[in-house]
Amino acid sequence: MNTTVGVIGGGQLARMMIPAAVNLGIELRVLAEGEGMSAGLAAVQVGDYRDRDVVLAFAESVDVITFDHEHVPQEILRELVSRGVAVHPGPDALLYAQDKLLMRQRLTELGLPVPDWARVETAAELGEFLAGHGGRAVVKTARGGYDGKGVRLVSHEHEADDWFAALAEDGNAGALLVEELVDFRRELAQLVARRPSGQIAVWPVVETVQKGGVCAEVIAPAPGSEGRLEQLAADIAVRVAEGVGVTGMLAVELFETSDGRLLVNELAMRPHNSGHWTIEGSTTSQFEQHLRAVLDLPLGATDARDPWTVMVNIIGGPGVGALSERFPAAFAAHPSVKVHTYGKAPRPGRKVGHVTAGGSDLDDVVYQTRATAAIFQD
Amino acid sequence: MNTTVGVIGGGQLARMMIPAAVNLGIELRVLAEGEGMSAGLAAVQVGDYRDRDVVLAFAESVDVITFDHEHVPQEILRELVSRGVAVHPGPDALLYAQDKLLMRQRLTELGLPVPDWARVETAAELGEFLAGHGGRAVVKTARGGYDGKGVRLVSHEHEADDWFAALAEDGNAGALLVEELVDFRRELAQLVARRPSGQIAVWPVVETVQKGGVCAEVIAPAPGSEGRLEQLAADIAVRVAEGVGVTGMLAVELFETSDGRLLVNELAMRPHNSGHWTIEGSTTSQFEQHLRAVLDLPLGATDARDPWTVMVNIIGGPGVGALSERFPAAFAAHPSVKVHTYGKAPRPGRKVGHVTAGGSDLDDVVYQTRATAAIFQD
Repeated sequence: MNTTVGVIGGGQLARMMIPAAVNLGIELRVLAEGEGMSAGLAAVQVGDYRDRDVVLAFAESVDVITFDHEHVPQEILRELVSRGVAVHPGPDALLYAQDKLLMRQRLTELGLPVPDWARVETAAELGEFLAGHGGRAVVKTARGGYDGKGVRLVSHEHEADDWFAALAEDGNAGALLVEELVDFRRELAQLVARRPSGQIAVWPVVETVQKGGVCAEVIAPAPGSEGRLEQLAADIAVRVAEGVGVTGMLAVELFETSDGRLLVNELAMRPHNSGHWTIEGSTTSQFEQHLRAVLDLPLGATDARDPWTVMVNIIGGPGVGALSERFPAAFAAHPSVKVHTYGKAPRPGRKVGHVTAGGSDLDDVVYQTRATAAIFQD
Repeated sequence: MNTTVGVIGGGQLARMMIPAAVNLGIELRVLAEGEGMSAGLAAVQVGDYRDRDVVLAFAESVDVITFDHEHVPQEILRELVSRGVAVHPGPDALLYAQDKLLMRQRLTELGLPVPDWARVETAAELGEFLAGHGGRAVVKTARGGYDGKGVRLVSHEHEADDWFAALAEDGNAGALLVEELVDFRRELAQLVARRPSGQIAVWPVVETVQKGGVCAEVIAPAPGSEGRLEQLAADIAVRVAEGVGVTGMLAVELFETSDGRLLVNELAMRPHNSGHWTIEGSTTSQFEQHLRAVLDLPLGATDARDPWTVMVNIIGGPGVGALSERFPAAFAAHPSVKVHTYGKAPRPGRKVGHVTAGGSDLDDVVYQTRATAAIFQD
């Protein structure tokens, strides 16, 4: 039984794998981008994940390679696989988390519901798409976007000229992804885990509330999702996981349209912010499940432990020093709320922690979590 | 806000503080007895806790000192305090966890219910106690006992002669503790946490099942304890915590007598095996609460998350190799049971892990946990 998991990337997702690893008794090694990263409490080696030799040497010390982010270059991932290293998720799957154009193309091939989209290489092509979609659209860079970066709402064909120019300068025969502006009621996220041998586990679908392109809150389960919506979301996510061959955690971000359809927005092939509620809120957290899945161990139960669980992110603001300065006030006022901080210096807009609470009264749980997060943000 | 906690001792109790520390964002440093200890995933320094210079140097790097065990010598603890180091629990309290004779004396002074006891220095004195208590009694060494070691059931005054001889050889003007053999229905344990500033948090009283002097199972709450028993147990533990001045976690092991009284058996001033169920079973685990308490932070809510939570220890047996070899069978059969292993090599009688499950059907929860633990023990 191989139980040393190597995580490439030392951010908060790797950090939150540590408690799960300690509890089970699984050894975790982290290849971090720098000193003092969030996951610094695990056995950490510092090195550049874009450096082939660094990654190959790191892989020698572990039984399976997984990730805190999706940025490891395909050629390095493929060399690992060709050398017999277990890599989960593998390069064939990760490709679709790395490149949004390929993702849209693959999901369309699989017959999954997605917004109208097109690959555009020129302002003229963008203009053509705008003309066919009411004059407004969302333009995305195929690679490198996250938390609202690389995403732009446009209403004129020349509003992406800088991105076209940057793609041209790269000597990259690149293109942008343009998508219809979906008239959505709300955003949902569906988490699933999949083992290499095929077993899949599905959590309840959740509602995610974004502010400024960044996830602010998650409500589990999504209010009113019982029945049709939860079935539909689970079905879509399972089809994505199997169709793309994901191993480990998969988060499928969804739009619920005002006419009741679900459309796939984004994919993440790793533990995801929309699943932090599972640490306390589900019998098996997404972090424990990710470790089980990448080690091809039987998956744990994914039921919710409370009727409602709410997670609110702590976003760094200008006036916030060390988050621990706020522990006395937060703990005294909210003894039932679980506080997580990531060991990151607060900066405006940066996710530096989150809080979670559960209970049977959704209004109260929302109040408790928002009030606690506010103590760390004012 | 000081948030670096130094733990003296690198066993599983220190190990289980790691997830709580990672989640909150508290830095943990461990002074371990050797390489490869259970808590090896934290920032570990290896050194002898009986060496004054080692402990003083370790204390320099942290904001507060706490413990995985109660064995640090009093003179070192007192030097730390005299140098202004925050030590929780402090030497005045720890004394009563280190010396069972002093503990019995103090609890008697406080008017707390304890078994009949005496300090005996000779076989004749032991014989006198036996004569007054139906010819049978329990003899305990004042120091160094745990998990059934240093405890002996005797029915003749010469059955502790070897211990008297050892005390004499030590040049120690020592004595043994002798206690009446309590006619108990069952054993209970009451966990409380206390901050230096006085706040106390109380968990539901639990039933503990011992096998061969070692804790085998814990049922939370103790069946039938609702009402009188839970009040009585909580009251006793709060009086102990305040009377002895404990800071951090306190576990009070209790006998429930066949005539419905509660008597204090043993004290532990640290997270305790009887509280492992709180990791999943309570809103705040004993490990998180211990960190909050020793940092003098407001304590978390201690309610149980399920009607019943059961914890069963994994005890090493002769045929068991690496525990992880049993993960596939255990995880496949029991997806709702949480498995904890401590990174210790299994040896007969050694606690190497535990499993926990919760639910509303006690019989089912007992079955699930026992069956899971058995997979790691056969």
